[in-house]
Amino acid sequence: MRKKNSNPTMKDVALEAGVALGTVSKVINGLPVGEEYRQKVESAIKKLNYQVNSYAQGLKANRTNTIALLVPNTINPFFGNLVNCITVALSKRHYHTLLCCTDYRQDLENKYIAMVKRKQVDGIIGLTYNPNLRVDENTPFVSIDRCLGPTIPCISSDNFAGGQIAAEKLASLGCRHVAFMRIGSSLTNEPNKRKSGFENGCMISGMTYENCLLEDGTSMEDFYRFLQEHYSGGKLAFDGIFCATDTTAYYILQCLRLLNVKVPEEVQVIGFDGVRILSEFGFVCSTIVQPVEDIAEMCVEMIHQENMSTKPPLICLPVHYEPGGTTRD
Amino acid sequence: MRKKNSNPTMKDVALEAGVALGTVSKVINGLPVGEEYRQKVESAIKKLNYQVNSYAQGLKANRTNTIALLVPNTINPFFGNLVNCITVALSKRHYHTLLCCTDYRQDLENKYIAMVKRKQVDGIIGLTYNPNLRVDENTPFVSIDRCLGPTIPCISSDNFAGGQIAAEKLASLGCRHVAFMRIGSSLTNEPNKRKSGFENGCMISGMTYENCLLEDGTSMEDFYRFLQEHYSGGKLAFDGIFCATDTTAYYILQCLRLLNVKVPEEVQVIGFDGVRILSEFGFVCSTIVQPVEDIAEMCVEMIHQENMSTKPPLICLPVHYEPGGTTRD
Repeated sequence: MRKKNSNPTMKDVALEAGVALGTVSKVINGLPVGEEYRQKVESAIKKLNYQVNSYAQGLKANRTNTIALLVPNTINPFFGNLVNCITVALSKRHYHTLLCCTDYRQDLENKYIAMVKRKQVDGIIGLTYNPNLRVDENTPFVSIDRCLGPTIPCISSDNFAGGQIAAEKLASLGCRHVAFMRIGSSLTNEPNKRKSGFENGCMISGMTYENCLLEDGTSMEDFYRFLQEHYSGGKLAFDGIFCATDTTAYYILQCLRLLNVKVPEEVQVIGFDGVRILSEFGFVCSTIVQPVEDIAEMCVEMIHQENMSTKPPLICLPVHYEPGGTTRD
Repeated sequence: MRKKNSNPTMKDVALEAGVALGTVSKVINGLPVGEEYRQKVESAIKKLNYQVNSYAQGLKANRTNTIALLVPNTINPFFGNLVNCITVALSKRHYHTLLCCTDYRQDLENKYIAMVKRKQVDGIIGLTYNPNLRVDENTPFVSIDRCLGPTIPCISSDNFAGGQIAAEKLASLGCRHVAFMRIGSSLTNEPNKRKSGFENGCMISGMTYENCLLEDGTSMEDFYRFLQEHYSGGKLAFDGIFCATDTTAYYILQCLRLLNVKVPEEVQVIGFDGVRILSEFGFVCSTIVQPVEDIAEMCVEMIHQENMSTKPPLICLPVHYEPGGTTRD
């Protein structure tokens, strides 16, 4: 057994473990190596109390083992869930997550794009709504929910199918005249396909429908006004409502309570996202569940691809319906 | 005007801005410098397209401008809100957030403590429930909600006062016999003071009370059983309930609906946290609001203190009550 008082080097670790220097390097950098070798190296590192110098390591390998994760915030339960799953997925691959809550600010998003160029992070997984964001093809960037260009892979739920599933479910539960309610950016992005899918599903099922679309920045109270306008004689004009998010559905349910419209007896409501908000127990409403863990895994998988430009520009992952008490099933 | 095709250096920036090299260094490292100088340097950096080499910078300054943030997850809405505020507070000071969702795993927490030692991050802001976590006094660590020792500052809400405020509010709204409901670790931590404060408030107000305390890992359904046991002849034994978190309150409200007990007519419910879950519009219940932004600011303030051992070991920030529809106010 070697004894050293000064800081041990990588060579000391290799000697202690009885393996080649390259094997030690692989283990330290999280590269694939036989399990037996990995264990030998890790116990040698522990025994010698070898401390990896990250800066020297970064300079040498030109990698930081760090991915920047850009989201508008972590307060919205869908974003919170997404950040959690991506962080866990990166951690499993011995990668760190540099989190930035952008609050939709493009200057912050650009700052992180510059960080990739300066090799301060290896790449970016980002959920951005800025129409003017420019990401060149040499920047490892995986986008969530918005296509930034043919060379930047975008990972998303199958939003179109989700909208269609919601319409078909409402139809199968007896609805005849339904409404679609959405607040948010009218920018071309993946979630906006929920509307097209829903309209398609309505047409297939022979249901009539109306849209209530609020722009970002307007007040959700306009939803309440819309419902009031379609309420007379103690009766709502719709027997089904599809909301673009569970958050919207939560608000609509409050409005319906104020109007004394019974859910699901008089009107059935389906949301979108499927985050188990506030707890481990149940959804806020019947909902189209996004596969958040699969989206996270796919983002992490894609950001590690060497040549992203050969990858499909858009990958849509399957959603499914779950009843949550606001429909008659 | 200088024109250079090769990569510009810090000296080039100083020359372009007409300032000393040290001033450029200060701006790059986020140290205090006159606003006028900062602007000169920043426009020179922009003009020359100067790219800071972070690794070289890190090696030189021995700082990473990065703080590790450890939380169990970002799914729980209180944690999600906390992560958001801390990330924003760090970003304002030109610091990055390295996020780790620990899922209560101590091995991950220890990994980040080792990262501070290896100078991969400058310090840690952590919310940990592990009783065996050892943080030595040379590790810049700011703890949230749990005291780790006299040399590690702990930032928390004034949980005791919050419990007392809840009791006094229920008493002032006419309650006579109340219940306290909590699920979670019985480990000594700051949030557990909510119970002591509540009991104190009950005694001061002359209310009688009962506790329903569930250990981590047990099912929340035991709350329902407890309520059933205290329900007979169409009447609940309590006229007020204080829940240790809004999440618990949300569950209790569901139980009360099942039992056909009217809120707030028959029983009034107060939660704790005050996160506006699911939206920007209103709380889930009447609640004791934690000052999440102030907690975040204080954590960031403390982690930047040079000598943390001279700082108070526990800082409790003021909470306040907000009605949210589950009390008669």
